[in-house]
Amino acid sequence: MCTSITLASKEGNVFFGRTMDFAAGMFGEDPGSPMSIVTIPAGAQVASQLNPWTAKYAAMGVGSTGTVCLMDGVNDQGLAGDLQVLMECEHASASDLQQRNLTAVLGEEFVTFVLTHFASVAEIKAHINEYGLLDQPLTQGNESVETPLHFTFADTTNSAVVLEPTDNGAFKVYDSIGVMTNSPEYNWHLTNIRNYISLDKFDPKTTKKVSERVSLDPIEAGTGYGMFGLPGDYTSPSRFVRSTFLANNLDPFTADNGINQLYSVFRTAMVPRGLERASQDDPLSDCTRYWSGYDLNKKEMYVQTCRGLTFSAKKLNPQSQEVTYTDIEIDNLVKWVD
Amino acid sequence: MCTSITLASKEGNVFFGRTMDFAAGMFGEDPGSPMSIVTIPAGAQVASQLNPWTAKYAAMGVGSTGTVCLMDGVNDQGLAGDLQVLMECEHASASDLQQRNLTAVLGEEFVTFVLTHFASVAEIKAHINEYGLLDQPLTQGNESVETPLHFTFADTTNSAVVLEPTDNGAFKVYDSIGVMTNSPEYNWHLTNIRNYISLDKFDPKTTKKVSERVSLDPIEAGTGYGMFGLPGDYTSPSRFVRSTFLANNLDPFTADNGINQLYSVFRTAMVPRGLERASQDDPLSDCTRYWSGYDLNKKEMYVQTCRGLTFSAKKLNPQSQEVTYTDIEIDNLVKWVD
Amino acid sequence: MCTSITLASKEGNVFFGRTMDFAAGMFGEDPGSPMSIVTIPAGAQVASQLNPWTAKYAAMGVGSTGTVCLMDGVNDQGLAGDLQVLMECEHASASDLQQRNLTAVLGEEFVTFVLTHFASVAEIKAHINEYGLLDQPLTQGNESVETPLHFTFADTTNSAVVLEPTDNGAFKVYDSIGVMTNSPEYNWHLTNIRNYISLDKFDPKTTKKVSERVSLDPIEAGTGYGMFGLPGDYTSPSRFVRSTFLANNLDPFTADNGINQLYSVFRTAMVPRGLERASQDDPLSDCTRYWSGYDLNKKEMYVQTCRGLTFSAKKLNPQSQEVTYTDIEIDNLVKWVD
Amino acid sequence: MCTSITLASKEGNVFFGRTMDFAAGMFGEDPGSPMSIVTIPAGAQVASQLNPWTAKYAAMGVGSTGTVCLMDGVNDQGLAGDLQVLMECEHASASDLQQRNLTAVLGEEFVTFVLTHFASVAEIKAHINEYGLLDQPLTQGNESVETPLHFTFADTTNSAVVLEPTDNGAFKVYDSIGVMTNSPEYNWHLTNIRNYISLDKFDPKTTKKVSERVSLDPIEAGTGYGMFGLPGDYTSPSRFVRSTFLANNLDPFTADNGINQLYSVFRTAMVPRGLERASQDDPLSDCTRYWSGYDLNKKEMYVQTCRGLTFSAKKLNPQSQEVTYTDIEIDNLVKWVD
Repeated sequence: MCTSITLASKEGNVFFGRTMDFAAGMFGEDPGSPMSIVTIPAGAQVASQLNPWTAKYAAMGVGSTGTVCLMDGVNDQGLAGDLQVLMECEHASASDLQQRNLTAVLGEEFVTFVLTHFASVAEIKAHINEYGLLDQPLTQGNESVETPLHFTFADTTNSAVVLEPTDNGAFKVYDSIGVMTNSPEYNWHLTNIRNYISLDKFDPKTTKKVSERVSLDPIEAGTGYGMFGLPGDYTSPSRFVRSTFLANNLDPFTADNGINQLYSVFRTAMVPRGLERASQDDPLSDCTRYWSGYDLNKKEMYVQTCRGLTFSAKKLNPQSQEVTYTDIEIDNLVKWVD
Repeated sequence: MCTSITLASKEGNVFFGRTMDFAAGMFGEDPGSPMSIVTIPAGAQVASQLNPWTAKYAAMGVGSTGTVCLMDGVNDQGLAGDLQVLMECEHASASDLQQRNLTAVLGEEFVTFVLTHFASVAEIKAHINEYGLLDQPLTQGNESVETPLHFTFADTTNSAVVLEPTDNGAFKVYDSIGVMTNSPEYNWHLTNIRNYISLDKFDPKTTKKVSERVSLDPIEAGTGYGMFGLPGDYTSPSRFVRSTFLANNLDPFTADNGINQLYSVFRTAMVPRGLERASQDDPLSDCTRYWSGYDLNKKEMYVQTCRGLTFSAKKLNPQSQEVTYTDIEIDNLVKWVD
Repeated sequence: MCTSITLASKEGNVFFGRTMDFAAGMFGEDPGSPMSIVTIPAGAQVASQLNPWTAKYAAMGVGSTGTVCLMDGVNDQGLAGDLQVLMECEHASASDLQQRNLTAVLGEEFVTFVLTHFASVAEIKAHINEYGLLDQPLTQGNESVETPLHFTFADTTNSAVVLEPTDNGAFKVYDSIGVMTNSPEYNWHLTNIRNYISLDKFDPKTTKKVSERVSLDPIEAGTGYGMFGLPGDYTSPSRFVRSTFLANNLDPFTADNGINQLYSVFRTAMVPRGLERASQDDPLSDCTRYWSGYDLNKKEMYVQTCRGLTFSAKKLNPQSQEVTYTDIEIDNLVKWVD
Repeated sequence: MCTSITLASKEGNVFFGRTMDFAAGMFGEDPGSPMSIVTIPAGAQVASQLNPWTAKYAAMGVGSTGTVCLMDGVNDQGLAGDLQVLMECEHASASDLQQRNLTAVLGEEFVTFVLTHFASVAEIKAHINEYGLLDQPLTQGNESVETPLHFTFADTTNSAVVLEPTDNGAFKVYDSIGVMTNSPEYNWHLTNIRNYISLDKFDPKTTKKVSERVSLDPIEAGTGYGMFGLPGDYTSPSRFVRSTFLANNLDPFTADNGINQLYSVFRTAMVPRGLERASQDDPLSDCTRYWSGYDLNKKEMYVQTCRGLTFSAKKLNPQSQEVTYTDIEIDNLVKWVD
């Protein structure tokens, strides 16, 4: 499914990224909705399938071409975030939300909604209890889909929040530890990582005397033993644990190295194609369709697709006047050296 | 330490790559010997610290700037390979090798030696029993170092071999399964992967009834469970297992997607900076300093360093006349899209 | 800490057992309160430190010698259960409980309270919302201790319940899957076992072809691979997972084999002495101090201590007139055969 | 399959035990050859299917009723040992053994052969290179079976050896670390346990600060985390690792507690019935059929079968005149306390 990670540099610059894992194509590699970089200028009318609104802040991110549904994005205030699948997500009916004085929103539009409405995590926290997820599928072409979702947002203060619509459509709010994956609910993961308390970035390098009879020497000069016990599969809890331990044991880095360091942590979460299949006959595999990384201070984004090595990059243009769709490169951009 | 992987496309084109994990810098990020792309033309005199030789085949690869010691490389016949640390490596004295009718070679020069002497894995196998590792340190500046090493080579027939100098300097030869990491010896790893026989690329997707009392539903829609039990740490055996299962469960791919698919498997083996430290006070961390990938059919190579997202690329130039050193880019080459 | 397991035979007879893991002695092996088999007849006055009550049902079980605090036990209706440490346990003040119309009970006396008040799990469920844990330490000698606890009970219908005082002293009620260990809360464990959905009692016995390049043969004739990935440590989540998978993959058994089969599952949960230490200087180790097993239909109990192989056994005597304390044997009772 | 473990008490008394895991019955629970305690007096003629011999030392142990094939046993010199399945075992032809000046022995009779010929591990080591396994099946009733086997022996000096007939029927000899299970070969296991170098008997008990963002508290008061990463399944390598870490992290114990401590370590290796099946239709499960434990100094043995809690015990009787078969109790011997 998906993983998102937030990192801060020595200077306090904040970097946010996510993988998009899915069993449908996004760049022509399999049937599915094509993705672009979607830019929504401040003041633009956002064509919601529920109640259109005017963007207070400009935002850009990866979204379905032709729609305003961002999968992830950043706004001109340096707030960034994404949506991911959460099986425990709940929706409520319009009347139910109304009775509870909750403004109805669509999950698929919620990243866009937040980025075009709020400037910071603090603002989100101050207002999130006014909203609830409506039980209304999103229409795309001939299809109507309602995806169970949760959300995370981070800002330039390195504050980060996880929002889970598990209270009958209303949101449970968690302080983020900088990582979000998929089910189960966030508090389960927060407990789960405590099981790994004995893992460490320091490696046993010398002979360990276990008893009179048994002494153990590290194999291969003692590298990597500190993380022994880290799970290597791609289920949601395992990606959560790996991402948390990698992100939080990185060496300090400077801002100019931020996107590179962010990507270095994500490698462990990126799912190769073919590894997760439903059955022999299923042509589709759940794999990482793209990675996107955001520099929150510079309002820049970087995207690498499953189709090539190229990193497409874009800086948010505050002068833009209308919603635009920019193609993401899928080939192998490399630097030929001679 | 290091990981190497060989993949073949649907058409049978072969791709070979390696990570270089080390506790010293290679691109200015930490003290250490700088690396370049080294090109050795056919007919060139190779300045060995033992017995200089004339290159029969042209070769290029990553090597210490100013030396002819390739860490990994490809030759004009489409043979590629690398060297990696193996603690169980043995060296023999000159007299000992002479008595056994073995030609002395230096481990650090052995990748270069093989790529400039042989055209295929079959040729290597036919001649490897004529050679033995000499117990003579390599001199670099003021330092003399003898590194315990083993080697792997692959060719365009998708044949691959592992060479381990564990027989008192002579080589034990193993058919490669397309993956090599570090200690212990190769046959240990070949047994170890059999422990993981129950892992699969197919995921349980539906409720599993364990007993009258216990039924289990997959969390998060059932992705990734087939690989449950895969180790996630970066020790040599764990990297071997992960790389083997990822490389061998990939969807079939076409040659034009080869470098991208090769890289997609390597992500699991690339060690972020900071994760493997000797102690709190040690400024160095054992991490992936670079990744290199080779297209054996096209005689092209791609290198990504730990310092940036850029992939430097080079095609072997058969017209080259002398040994050359080409800089590897360390910045973040991206495609700005607007 | 502790593990409890409930099993049913083919005929539907029910067996309940628990390990008592603790860092203090219970049978003279280390400093600590000595344990006996405590029998409380129906009609006896139970000397609570809060409000003494009259036992409606006779009960027996393991308890601190001289007290009426059962750690585990069975009553004359075939209801059995135990208490275990749960760090998330909450207590409430007397006034708070009164305001909520909850009858105050002491956690340490709660197993005794339930066994002498209720005949079945259904009865417990019907009344548990009338009670809450009082924030009042238990006095034993010169010490006052308040232990964070949770509880499980099973009856002869093979119904089982877990009671966790995590709602400000009031109880959250969970249908038991037949296993309880320690923290975190029960619903966390119920989610956690779903991570292990790919584990199976059936073993891969033949060569597995992973790819053209890799085929794996089972080592040692293919036994045990179905459970590959099962955690082997003694933390609470790992004991929960192991106990659940072992208990629910047992072959069907007849009632006369019940105690033996119950014990066979418990072996995986019993902690040897020395394995869990706070530090080099700490003379105490958290280990299994005793195992007790109950035949709910026969109202019999069996106890094995950490000090010897002997299983002490006792049948509940309904004719008993007063609270009695019976010594548990600590030696090695064996059958000498000649 | 099987596990054997050797422990020494504070005083230096030595205890040896083994589990017998098998997919056939041994005590009437499934079809199979019934087992007894077999006693062979010094001076007795041992009815080998190859070359009968005279016992130099008296021995007793568990064996097939009516045969002299011991699965495990102890002799009057305090030497004890067992046989277990090893898939890599090799047999040689009579002529081949003869050419190599090796005395032919049958694997199934080899424990008996060693116990009735040798007084110590040192003696075994001094003579083991004189023997080789003959490629001749053992005849039992209408059946002829040749089982691939390896062997371990321990003596009262706490010396222990592993003998593996992997050199074309001749034995490779390993110093034992006190544990033996099944395939692969012993040196593979000796390397494998080094992967677990970071495991420890000391538990993290306090909050661990991983980074500014992430601090981890132990769940359930910090018990068991030191062994996090220990594998929990019943494959041969996993049983080897668990047994090694448990046996070598035990608290020191006195000799009178030896059999009890030996058994406490074995619990982790004992396989419940039903957990390892070939298929749904296979009525047999590979499970622990019996456990036997030996006090080498007292020449006493203890056996617990899969059919009941009883420990049968026997002391080697040096006055015995002929080969005898003693029944092993299968019921639930307990101490009724009142």
